[in-house]
Amino acid sequence: MFFMVIERVLIVDPVDGEFTGDVEVDDGKICRIRKRECTPRGILMPGFVDPHIHGVMGADTMNCDFERMEEFLYSQGVTTFLATTVSTSLEKMKEILGKARDYIFKNPETSLFGVHLEGPYISREKKGAHSEKYIRTPSKEELKEIDLPAKVLTFAPEIENSAILLELLEKAIVLSAGHSNATFEEFMKFYREGVKRITHFPNALRTLHHREVGIMGAGLLLDDVKVELICDGVHLSKEMVKLVYRVKGAGGIILITDSISTAGFKEGTTTLGDLVVKVKEDVPRLEDGTLAGSTLFFSNAVKNFQRFTGASLKELAIVSSYNACLEFGLADRGRIKEGMKADLVLLDEDLNVLMTVKSGDTVFSA
Amino acid sequence: MFFMVIERVLIVDPVDGEFTGDVEVDDGKICRIRKRECTPRGILMPGFVDPHIHGVMGADTMNCDFERMEEFLYSQGVTTFLATTVSTSLEKMKEILGKARDYIFKNPETSLFGVHLEGPYISREKKGAHSEKYIRTPSKEELKEIDLPAKVLTFAPEIENSAILLELLEKAIVLSAGHSNATFEEFMKFYREGVKRITHFPNALRTLHHREVGIMGAGLLLDDVKVELICDGVHLSKEMVKLVYRVKGAGGIILITDSISTAGFKEGTTTLGDLVVKVKEDVPRLEDGTLAGSTLFFSNAVKNFQRFTGASLKELAIVSSYNACLEFGLADRGRIKEGMKADLVLLDEDLNVLMTVKSGDTVFSA
Repeated sequence: MFFMVIERVLIVDPVDGEFTGDVEVDDGKICRIRKRECTPRGILMPGFVDPHIHGVMGADTMNCDFERMEEFLYSQGVTTFLATTVSTSLEKMKEILGKARDYIFKNPETSLFGVHLEGPYISREKKGAHSEKYIRTPSKEELKEIDLPAKVLTFAPEIENSAILLELLEKAIVLSAGHSNATFEEFMKFYREGVKRITHFPNALRTLHHREVGIMGAGLLLDDVKVELICDGVHLSKEMVKLVYRVKGAGGIILITDSISTAGFKEGTTTLGDLVVKVKEDVPRLEDGTLAGSTLFFSNAVKNFQRFTGASLKELAIVSSYNACLEFGLADRGRIKEGMKADLVLLDEDLNVLMTVKSGDTVFSA
Repeated sequence: MFFMVIERVLIVDPVDGEFTGDVEVDDGKICRIRKRECTPRGILMPGFVDPHIHGVMGADTMNCDFERMEEFLYSQGVTTFLATTVSTSLEKMKEILGKARDYIFKNPETSLFGVHLEGPYISREKKGAHSEKYIRTPSKEELKEIDLPAKVLTFAPEIENSAILLELLEKAIVLSAGHSNATFEEFMKFYREGVKRITHFPNALRTLHHREVGIMGAGLLLDDVKVELICDGVHLSKEMVKLVYRVKGAGGIILITDSISTAGFKEGTTTLGDLVVKVKEDVPRLEDGTLAGSTLFFSNAVKNFQRFTGASLKELAIVSSYNACLEFGLADRGRIKEGMKADLVLLDEDLNVLMTVKSGDTVFSA
């Protein structure tokens, strides 16, 4: 961490918008922003946040490969991420949470912000690529063990005993509805208690029907519900991304990769928890054809979103970083503003990553 | 047709908005509008337009009961309507068009504006309450026989030979996609040729899927596509109506009743074309449970839409009259403006119809 000046860039802040100038970094923080007219040599945005990633380039949350994930994600401009589990045993969950806690303790400037527990309290009908044997209803005993660094728990509102999950809100764990067959009203019960987030919308959710719009309809209708989107062009068609953007605006969208350990390999076989996943032409599926996570890289998610929707750079900063920071109460990042943590990504005009800065250190450079 | 002054009303125009005053009517037209501050004794809106009604109170388009339909519809504030057929033989279509033509010729001030041909060129998979034996693909020979007073034809874009239907546009017949399993792209082919309307959205349409948003996704996504809505609270849930309103705004919505001859009778048995329909608790269904039109009255459609969406009075004038007038090129009505035809409906504050005026004549008074 030393003094750094990022000169002549188009600065994109999710609140103040776009302007040209220089950014001075000192002691890991943005210490000064100089607005001035210049021809920018790149686009400077707040470092990307991926709140839903299972693995990448062979590294896997289930194997606690946090360091390898972190390392690779810098090449994608990601400066904050949640290592994401699939439905598993309580023992395994405790092990992963424990190791993540240690890793964060030993690496105070790590981009690993915590763990996203996807399941196991989800719907069997909407299990997607979760192993059925681990899917269960929540109990007081299990919930006692779930604590920080868990930051998000994906659950199905309609399952038995789901109401006790609301206790997790007191531990500052964000509840995200997902892998769910919930009706509109079943979701609304949790919405009224503060659940305002939906996991990989609208994958693994009850389909929108005109007589029961369900959780998907709720996600579209309710302004203050934020939805994760996998913008790989496979999980959702371009038109669906456009529709979500049109209905909710950038303020309601959080880009994620949902990538698994094979991301980065065109073909091959891997596992997602207990399940065998085959990757063919870059798309990972279970044997029965069910999509099993993605092979999406975060910088491509940003490019695709821009291409599908025509969003502005300011909006890209909102969906790739700011919204996630807001929901996690991360007040020290997600903006390009004096006093904020120097988590930054420099992009060329085609949105390729040129450089990533984490807490003032250059952690990647193309 | 004589001179009439409608005094002290809240005038609601779909363009100029709401203001209080008096409306003077002479020779069937609005001759003067006097704006002035006053306590209004009712809400004056352009007469309602129902472009999709099969029958009501025992009267049926298939039996050419135009006079009885017209008569009853005045009690609903409807001053323009399209008598709507179900899929039937060419002979029957010709008979209905012929009789409608005669009726309009003999009654120049009738509210029967023409015929909406719903089918027979629709999808077998999405047939709803249409008799399968009449569903067919279009041919040059049949199209020769289809002419005014047909004003709308509901068709499925994806069926064989559907492209020849575009010829009907030259006869000023509006093409409306419906009873259709069309993909997004199948609909887009017709959209690009000028088809910008969808029948009773999203009933009898391919479901919105996140990887193929289909014709339903197109209806939501495309600003200049207008969609018919059956606001009876049965065909679509309240939330779905809200969602369509939220996405498209009042400018994209056309209220219809889609009512059948049993509308007005709580219980009973009737036919829709060849099919037997049973009405139970006000909901008409085929034996297999398929919804078969509605028992909705137009004034209730307006009330429900207001209740479901919170739309303003100006927006109610847009969805109940103005949009339909625009799409049919009806430049002489749909506004409360000097020089326009005096087709008016006076409502109380709960939107009950107090009086209906057609071409300057009081045709209903509560």
